[in-house]
Amino acid sequence: MFKGIGASSGITIGKVLLLEKEDIHIQRTTIENVEEEKDKFKKAIDISKEQIEVIKSKAGEEQKSILDAHLMVLQDPELITSVEEKITSKKLNVEAALEDVLKTFISIFEAMDDEYMRERAADIKDVGQRAMMNLFGKEMTNLAELDEPVIIAAHDITPSDTAQMNGEKVLGFITDIGGRTSHSAIMARSMEIPAIVGLGSITKEVKTGDLVVFDGNEGIVMVNPEASIIKEYEERKEKEIAEKAELRKLVNSHTVSKDGRKIELASNIGNPKDAKKASENGAEGIGLYRTEFLYMDRANLPTEEEQFLAYKEVLKIMGQRPVIIRTLDIGGDKELPYLNLPKEMNPFLGYRAIRICLDQKYIFKTQLRALLRASVYGNLKIMYPMISSLEEIRQANSVLEEVKQDLQKENIDYSSNIEVGIMIEIPAAAVISHMLAKEVDFFSIGTNDLIQYTTAVDRMNEKISYLYNPFNPAVLALIKLVIDNGHKEGIWVGMCGEVAGDPRLIPVLLGMGLDEFSMSAASVLPARKQIQGLSYEEMQKVADKVLEMNIADAIEAFVKQYQ
Amino acid sequence: MFKGIGASSGITIGKVLLLEKEDIHIQRTTIENVEEEKDKFKKAIDISKEQIEVIKSKAGEEQKSILDAHLMVLQDPELITSVEEKITSKKLNVEAALEDVLKTFISIFEAMDDEYMRERAADIKDVGQRAMMNLFGKEMTNLAELDEPVIIAAHDITPSDTAQMNGEKVLGFITDIGGRTSHSAIMARSMEIPAIVGLGSITKEVKTGDLVVFDGNEGIVMVNPEASIIKEYEERKEKEIAEKAELRKLVNSHTVSKDGRKIELASNIGNPKDAKKASENGAEGIGLYRTEFLYMDRANLPTEEEQFLAYKEVLKIMGQRPVIIRTLDIGGDKELPYLNLPKEMNPFLGYRAIRICLDQKYIFKTQLRALLRASVYGNLKIMYPMISSLEEIRQANSVLEEVKQDLQKENIDYSSNIEVGIMIEIPAAAVISHMLAKEVDFFSIGTNDLIQYTTAVDRMNEKISYLYNPFNPAVLALIKLVIDNGHKEGIWVGMCGEVAGDPRLIPVLLGMGLDEFSMSAASVLPARKQIQGLSYEEMQKVADKVLEMNIADAIEAFVKQYQ
Repeated sequence: MFKGIGASSGITIGKVLLLEKEDIHIQRTTIENVEEEKDKFKKAIDISKEQIEVIKSKAGEEQKSILDAHLMVLQDPELITSVEEKITSKKLNVEAALEDVLKTFISIFEAMDDEYMRERAADIKDVGQRAMMNLFGKEMTNLAELDEPVIIAAHDITPSDTAQMNGEKVLGFITDIGGRTSHSAIMARSMEIPAIVGLGSITKEVKTGDLVVFDGNEGIVMVNPEASIIKEYEERKEKEIAEKAELRKLVNSHTVSKDGRKIELASNIGNPKDAKKASENGAEGIGLYRTEFLYMDRANLPTEEEQFLAYKEVLKIMGQRPVIIRTLDIGGDKELPYLNLPKEMNPFLGYRAIRICLDQKYIFKTQLRALLRASVYGNLKIMYPMISSLEEIRQANSVLEEVKQDLQKENIDYSSNIEVGIMIEIPAAAVISHMLAKEVDFFSIGTNDLIQYTTAVDRMNEKISYLYNPFNPAVLALIKLVIDNGHKEGIWVGMCGEVAGDPRLIPVLLGMGLDEFSMSAASVLPARKQIQGLSYEEMQKVADKVLEMNIADAIEAFVKQYQ
Repeated sequence: MFKGIGASSGITIGKVLLLEKEDIHIQRTTIENVEEEKDKFKKAIDISKEQIEVIKSKAGEEQKSILDAHLMVLQDPELITSVEEKITSKKLNVEAALEDVLKTFISIFEAMDDEYMRERAADIKDVGQRAMMNLFGKEMTNLAELDEPVIIAAHDITPSDTAQMNGEKVLGFITDIGGRTSHSAIMARSMEIPAIVGLGSITKEVKTGDLVVFDGNEGIVMVNPEASIIKEYEERKEKEIAEKAELRKLVNSHTVSKDGRKIELASNIGNPKDAKKASENGAEGIGLYRTEFLYMDRANLPTEEEQFLAYKEVLKIMGQRPVIIRTLDIGGDKELPYLNLPKEMNPFLGYRAIRICLDQKYIFKTQLRALLRASVYGNLKIMYPMISSLEEIRQANSVLEEVKQDLQKENIDYSSNIEVGIMIEIPAAAVISHMLAKEVDFFSIGTNDLIQYTTAVDRMNEKISYLYNPFNPAVLALIKLVIDNGHKEGIWVGMCGEVAGDPRLIPVLLGMGLDEFSMSAASVLPARKQIQGLSYEEMQKVADKVLEMNIADAIEAFVKQYQ
């Protein structure tokens, strides 16, 4: 029994295929024929490119973009020139030259503050390894052509390994290293392959052919367990499948409590593909479209046209169902290198989101133009993030008004009834929500940041993670305050933070009168099932009781019975 | 007319003494006699030490500690060895060796994140310059023996320059470089010498003998102005003196509004010397003793005895007046290198203050022991910082109880009626202050952090400083909520953030019912005068009106009339 980090949920049972990376010993020699060495390098790069193109031709959409990133690494002039330079000036053999350059590049990326950039180190390692193998005339493992379904055990699963995986043949994977946010973990979730990472030295503990069972939610791997345990996992797996099938039946039903309170269950998305998935999972709308992904992972700002197409696609997928698109929420932990944002001591308390948009209006205007143009294709609602005062709402609305007038002058259509709302994620906004409610059409409570600021806890900081607690009575009191203040002014109140999809808190939020819950696509059906089994009237009493309690742990224990 | 940064307040009129630093040209030569060169270095260091000892013998307390730091630089084995090493291995002449080593040391300190450590670069520069001058057999300017009162103009005033200054002979100083938090600026304020820094190239614009007038509050320097302007400044200076004299008369009076509401005006301090100053300025208590200064600027934790002596001294100075000592509030922007705290992405939302104390209990216990032992010497109140939940109060109190029992076992006396309170500086604490009030003896609102977290704005971040606004209606609403909740439970509510001493907000805070205002010693008498001229009843109406307003600028404009 080995303990790791659950990276992708699901129960799986199967035989292990142990991926052993070939150990390559690189010798440093002084070469004489520089051109010959440079030629070898060029060939290795070319073969690597061809291999990746082949994998790419069979890969899914998300994998394709990773493979494109790999192709870019192989074409990076800085990398190419650095290797050639080392061959020429130091008369170093190509293998040693490549090794040196890769080390430098990887350590630069690994030292970066930004998690996203750090993950790029994995891509460089992956591509570099492929090029190196090709220099030695060796082949990388090909996961695309597995004979029978297996659970893959490896020191690390590289992004190109995952990109080759055939979901039907790979029952799961277990790795020595990696965390929940590593590239491979993200891929596993996206491909719905159960995975446990960060197991330490699982590759030393298992061999090909071993029987392994695990539950991706629990992070525990059992190797060659007793028959009784295999039976238990088989039963759990069957139950999991049956429950999923049961949930599927709720796809087209409404979300109504036992006593008739109707709720809107929406989904959080990052791109049009997510919207499709949300729709397939029965989401009644999009409660949060995080547009920042349009801005990331590129060299400059997205054009109005690019944005328009993305927004339009999501709106068309959702038809008449509401789609709340949040304006750019960059800064904090999400950086855009091309904006040259200042390095900040406390980025979470810094220059970000609406603060950037109101300061650099050309960015904001381009986005608002794209949004307005797309609005005719569906039911668009616009939402401003990081609002801390009434002034910011008025300023943002006046920019929106300007853009509308521009469009009118240009005879470009836009919908005339777009609701405009704000995220309530800064304590100030919650405290004066009675004032803000008079100026907007809706609120959406962003619990991730609201908890963070209300309790002064960086949710990424492991030293104090015990304090980042949605059951903190102050957080619950603020949520209730916002809902009440919204209702008093006749506007609806939603929530798009992680709390909205948390089965422990759904009963309390229902009781508090929350109108819309927005969560990951995978949570929609379980949440619908849960709400259909709850009584609104009873949950109101539960919520009132919770608001009188003063200890987070006691609240958590008390609400458990309604989960 | 030249514009700089007002570093120390006060109006001054006088003749300029331009300090020109001698330009030393250092040549790089290869030497033959290593021992001779090392000898020269040793002599220069010895002479420098003697000079500093002489200055120190005539210096005040605060200057002495700076000069001690300088002596430590001269004894730093790493610096000495580095220079000798360069002489020995590179056969470099001593002047060039010293120059190289100083450059490295200075750049290391200047690159540090911590502002305090950055300021150490100025000390090294200063001492290094002295040693260099001694190598060349030249003397540094001696500011201790000025013939007549002058305003000193210099590129920069070094810490040892300020340490030599005789407050009666130096009417003020103006410099090309420096900021409000530079060592020299801090010294100027402590010596009450008016100063303007960061003037760019004032040393190019004035010469010795020029007549200069300036107001340290405004940051504007006038050189050889017209007679009418001199007259105006003379009148302002007289007025300033008269007002100060007028304020002095209030030193022993109570702080009571026109209609009889009695307020406690206390002072924030960082050490026993500040307590003396607070007492001289008529403070009715210490509202906040920041004990972290005891922990800073040293190689390891202060012992119980060291702490005990400091606390006892403050308590004895204040006699029966209350002294609120805040337990260690380290972390955030205040680092203790010897604790090896983790580098954090958002230190303001991190592992700090009570979070550290409850995690590393030995630190907390030592401080609580020192506090309890000191309690018999005066009117001690203990305050916990960064409270975000009831659990933390209970945990802290249980450690306090443990320490009390230890002392009882050891037959060590402590006061039996020590009030225990908390800082309200995290929004969560303000929101559930009705719950927290049942468990403590008092609240003290820490507005600096409360504003920061409530509005999600790092107050050090210049890009968004416009959002760090005490007039934000949410901040004012939370303050009122805390005061009301405290009073409902029968406890008193104070404030020790910068807002408490802000004449623009004092009327509103009075009206909200704040019981205690704690501020810098210099603000106590002006605040007393202001409150004596206000009607509590009227200010209650003003506060009610303010709480209905929704725009920060409008609130600021509205309250101006009561300032």
